[in-house]
Amino acid sequence: MTRTSVGDLGALVDRARDGDPRAVARLITLVESDHEQLPELAAALAPATGTGQVIGLTGSPGVGKSTVTTELVRALRATGRRVGVLAVDPSSPFTGGAILGDRIRMQDHTTDPGVYIRSMSSRGRLGGLAAATPQAVRVLEGAGCEVILVETVGVGQAEVEIASLADTTLVLLAPGLGDAIQAAKAGILEVADIFVVNKADRAGADATYHDIQGMIGLADRAPGQWRPPVLRVVATTGSGIDELVAAIGKHRDWLGSHDQLRARHRQRAASEIEAIVLARLQRRIESVTGLPARAAAVAAGQQDPYAAADAILAELGLDP
Amino acid sequence: MTRTSVGDLGALVDRARDGDPRAVARLITLVESDHEQLPELAAALAPATGTGQVIGLTGSPGVGKSTVTTELVRALRATGRRVGVLAVDPSSPFTGGAILGDRIRMQDHTTDPGVYIRSMSSRGRLGGLAAATPQAVRVLEGAGCEVILVETVGVGQAEVEIASLADTTLVLLAPGLGDAIQAAKAGILEVADIFVVNKADRAGADATYHDIQGMIGLADRAPGQWRPPVLRVVATTGSGIDELVAAIGKHRDWLGSHDQLRARHRQRAASEIEAIVLARLQRRIESVTGLPARAAAVAAGQQDPYAAADAILAELGLDP
Repeated sequence: MTRTSVGDLGALVDRARDGDPRAVARLITLVESDHEQLPELAAALAPATGTGQVIGLTGSPGVGKSTVTTELVRALRATGRRVGVLAVDPSSPFTGGAILGDRIRMQDHTTDPGVYIRSMSSRGRLGGLAAATPQAVRVLEGAGCEVILVETVGVGQAEVEIASLADTTLVLLAPGLGDAIQAAKAGILEVADIFVVNKADRAGADATYHDIQGMIGLADRAPGQWRPPVLRVVATTGSGIDELVAAIGKHRDWLGSHDQLRARHRQRAASEIEAIVLARLQRRIESVTGLPARAAAVAAGQQDPYAAADAILAELGLDP
Repeated sequence: MTRTSVGDLGALVDRARDGDPRAVARLITLVESDHEQLPELAAALAPATGTGQVIGLTGSPGVGKSTVTTELVRALRATGRRVGVLAVDPSSPFTGGAILGDRIRMQDHTTDPGVYIRSMSSRGRLGGLAAATPQAVRVLEGAGCEVILVETVGVGQAEVEIASLADTTLVLLAPGLGDAIQAAKAGILEVADIFVVNKADRAGADATYHDIQGMIGLADRAPGQWRPPVLRVVATTGSGIDELVAAIGKHRDWLGSHDQLRARHRQRAASEIEAIVLARLQRRIESVTGLPARAAAVAAGQQDPYAAADAILAELGLDP
């Protein structure tokens, strides 16, 4: 836990609300950290909760997430909306932080005061991005962002969960790379509200399109449930981006008219609370004095891990 | 939680020890599930702990993990060792189970009684694969497997953690697809004991090789620490597989001579215990009666998630 004081949090939140990009950056750095003032910050940010539209964007490496994000930002800015982007990168042990290589293209937008772009890493944060991302969204909401894009790199379960915290989740596919079967394997089909076949001008794009339509057709859906559309996009030329913005709007309208938006916001809050509780409990488990001895006994085959878990629960003061 | 009895677990474990593949299959199905007899099974399996050499194998989708695994199995079988393979797939919501498409190639080995191959899915398992995989490894150890390959699909944090539970972890790369930068993003460089550039006969393989060598050179390493070698492999022809087997042996020797093997086994056991404890606590958190109301308050901006987490901890009977 970081113990250095960050000074007057209220003043920092006020400056972020006025759109000061340095204050926003400082607050996001705080929510990424394990700072002891996090609860105080969370209390100051709470009133901003739910004021922005959150769009998740996920897909395998190489499908073109950053390019699609950049084009979405351009299209959303054209409608005058303030936009925030959180690019969620697992941290690299080699650089000590997120790798920003493919963020460079986004620098198109860095001189636009109506756009706030930030990469987030999970380095050193207990509970990881599942706990930090909703707070970072709240910082951007507090700073007046009307739309917040959360782009997750990777196809793992944790990233999928982060994407599913959005109001609308886009799953990106591309011909060959990160195809429909790979997406199914990674469990990312489940979270999709809208499918985007990027690089739709390349060979194999039709096959990817039809594969994903086939998988959607196979899924069980109750009557009245949202059926994810599949859109073809060539992000490098901007082709299909306006249609994507329209589809996001249509999904948002559907959420509102089916009372789904409030349900998603509550689900998101429940996940956030759970992540914080689990992070605190994980810290306690790791500090249980009996853990090293239990681990040695399990490693030696002298105790089974369930019996060891019971003992740890008892040390935590809980019934096994 | 599944409540149907599986009968005499001791007898099932005995049959698995005698190499009965159906008994092994049934036990792995059990450890994947949430069955109430899991603690009993764990106790029966405990003595087998640590008797096998565990090799993790991970990398982005499409780098050729299954092909490399298949060739490794062939080479290990040629030395007469009994081999187990656990292919860890996030489950697909569309098929209700793991997708086995690229497992087909492994059927080369399915008539060999010295090889046991199994796909695992996390469907319905609280605590997920982090809790189930070590138990499945123990089933295979109990069945006499001397080497166990754990292949993880995907590049997310959970998969990385599973790979890092191995004695030796291989990180696969391929030219273009899942290149070094993408691997760094996904956090998989950190867990590598050996890097494998697969498809080394393709254009761009040299660039991938040099990228990864460059990244290894940049990493901080204490004197005497293991420096991951980078091997070039063409798994479809078997080229480089013997060298890979030799490198795995060399790493194993290094672990033994530096007292690292016991440390890794203890770390693995500690992670396993922690996963079981956290899964139990997660179940309790989700059943806390106050959670829906807290989530609604957080979603409405009336309470911050840290204050809500404190309240949930108190309901669990713990000090905030």
